[in-house]
Amino acid sequence: MASRICDSVLVTGSNRGIGLELVRQLVDSPSPPVQIFAGCRDPSGPRSQALQELAQKHRDVITVVQLDTTSLTSIAEASKLVETKLKGRGLNLIINNAGVNVPGSLAETGIQEMVDVYTTNVVGPMLIVKDFHPLLCKAAAQFPHQTNMSCKRSAIINVSTLLSSITRCPENFSVSPMYPYRVSKAALNMLTRCLAEDLKKDGILVMSLHPGWVQTEMGGPKAPLTTAESISGLIKVIASCTEKDSGTLLDWEGKNIPW
Amino acid sequence: MASRICDSVLVTGSNRGIGLELVRQLVDSPSPPVQIFAGCRDPSGPRSQALQELAQKHRDVITVVQLDTTSLTSIAEASKLVETKLKGRGLNLIINNAGVNVPGSLAETGIQEMVDVYTTNVVGPMLIVKDFHPLLCKAAAQFPHQTNMSCKRSAIINVSTLLSSITRCPENFSVSPMYPYRVSKAALNMLTRCLAEDLKKDGILVMSLHPGWVQTEMGGPKAPLTTAESISGLIKVIASCTEKDSGTLLDWEGKNIPW
Ligand SMILES: NC(=O)c1ccc[n+]([C@@H]2O[C@H](COP(=O)([O-])OP(=O)(O)OC[C@H]3O[C@@H](n4cnc5c(N)ncnc54)[C@H](OP(=O)(O)O)[C@@H]3O)[C@@H](O)[C@H]2O)c1
Ligand SMILES: NC(=O)c1ccc[n+]([C@@H]2O[C@H](COP(=O)([O-])OP(=O)(O)OC[C@H]3O[C@@H](n4cnc5c(N)ncnc54)[C@H](OP(=O)(O)O)[C@@H]3O)[C@@H](O)[C@H]2O)c1
Repeated sequence: MASRICDSVLVTGSNRGIGLELVRQLVDSPSPPVQIFAGCRDPSGPRSQALQELAQKHRDVITVVQLDTTSLTSIAEASKLVETKLKGRGLNLIINNAGVNVPGSLAETGIQEMVDVYTTNVVGPMLIVKDFHPLLCKAAAQFPHQTNMSCKRSAIINVSTLLSSITRCPENFSVSPMYPYRVSKAALNMLTRCLAEDLKKDGILVMSLHPGWVQTEMGGPKAPLTTAESISGLIKVIASCTEKDSGTLLDWEGKNIPW
Repeated sequence: MASRICDSVLVTGSNRGIGLELVRQLVDSPSPPVQIFAGCRDPSGPRSQALQELAQKHRDVITVVQLDTTSLTSIAEASKLVETKLKGRGLNLIINNAGVNVPGSLAETGIQEMVDVYTTNVVGPMLIVKDFHPLLCKAAAQFPHQTNMSCKRSAIINVSTLLSSITRCPENFSVSPMYPYRVSKAALNMLTRCLAEDLKKDGILVMSLHPGWVQTEMGGPKAPLTTAESISGLIKVIASCTEKDSGTLLDWEGKNIPW
């Protein structure tokens, strides 16, 4: 039997798109996590119906958690709920998936677009990490000291994108300018790298992952990958990544993307 | 006689530190620009006294311009004044130097710190470029079509830092965590790279430059470089950079820093 990716995981923005498919494939895996916390900002709204149905079918595993990743009070309440549900155990894995994009040519971009996209794509993941840090430390400490870092033990995955690569920008800029998005995701990569350095003392692995160009509301219908394809790749990468991957950006096939 | 770096230049945040020394060395150079626009947010305040004295001494060259780089109205008024003073000519060079840092461990960093530093260090330079774009285009067009790109013709320099390098973060993170600053400057590098792609059609060169660790209020007294040393290097780099440097990050000695 396949070994379990981890005992407990939190996925943000899990009511649709990549986040929803992550929860679906995690719960449907041969050896699912014991607890999946499915964060979404409007659990009772129409956009969360598919998630609620999935959670109904797997009541023992999935807990839907109200979580607006840009609201300090929402994050604090979510972490309290998660802590209670974990009954003294730590949280092994956080997948910072919630993200936004907006039309982004230079002409279309002003202060508001820049700050809003940055707040969701960069500040949100940082606030989540700050608040859930004790639960991640607790998870790491449940393994013998000096156990290698892994997503099974304690980890943070920030969902980034190929478009975050400053190196590769000239290849794809003209097709998708997206100033606020690109700039925010490059910033997210630096956050990943800083956290990887900062939290290795706690035994917490930190990575950025690129899911590929995926058919979601954000990716649009022309994207080459279905969510099923992308997430089956991402889950393999998550399950297999080790110490040496901490502080890197990998794609859904495990290939390294340069900064 | 040394050839002139460019006919006209705007330096933001030029009332102290690196910005002030840039204006000083530009005006004192053997062949100074015809017009130097010295941006500062409080021209009549006590922190602008040194700049005002320098401008008094070089009234024919230096124009002090009220310019808060995070204020749309201030930027619009500054660009109107610059346009009037240029009397139909374009603006050759913008040096986006204004920047801020704050204490930046994870514990010290919240939404406000992240957004404020991002707004000054990333959104400000973007707003300046948007507003001054026509003047940069005009400068580029004053050269024969297909002239190579250069700071003499039309260019944007974003003042970045070694700490913006995601690649090199593990080397220096523990000495200076600085989450808001590092994350913002990595974002600024992506802005540089996007603008370099976007504006090459207009003949505008765009680069990031790292001034070294410099004795200023931001750099502190322990920094190894004086402003005089840093800026004499920066000015050589600015004078010599060409087409192939557009979209890169160089230090004050002209050495490339990886993203
Ligand atoms: N699709 C692609 O091709 C692609 C490629 C590279 C990277 N990515 C990244 O993958 C991640 C997921 O993208 P996707 O394609 O699934 O996008 P999507 O279909 O637009 O879904 C975005 C998800 O994020 C949630 N969200 C946004 N802001 C939030 C907030 N403040 N609090 C909580 N949740 C929030 C949304 O919730 P609501 O329903 O409440 O709005 C939604 O669940 C993003 O980080 C994106 O940048 C996507
Ligand atoms: N010093 C170093 O070691 C070092 C190393 C790498 C990079 N840098 C970069 O070099 C640049 C200059 O740094 P510095 O060392 O000269 O710093 P500094 O001594 O602290 O001076 C910062 C300058 O930026 C101005 N400024 C800040 N916010 C502004 C705004 N909204 N509008 C207009 N002006 C604003 C300040 O004006 P006020 O007087 O009005 O506050 C001041 O003139 C920054 O971008 C910094 O990140 C410095």
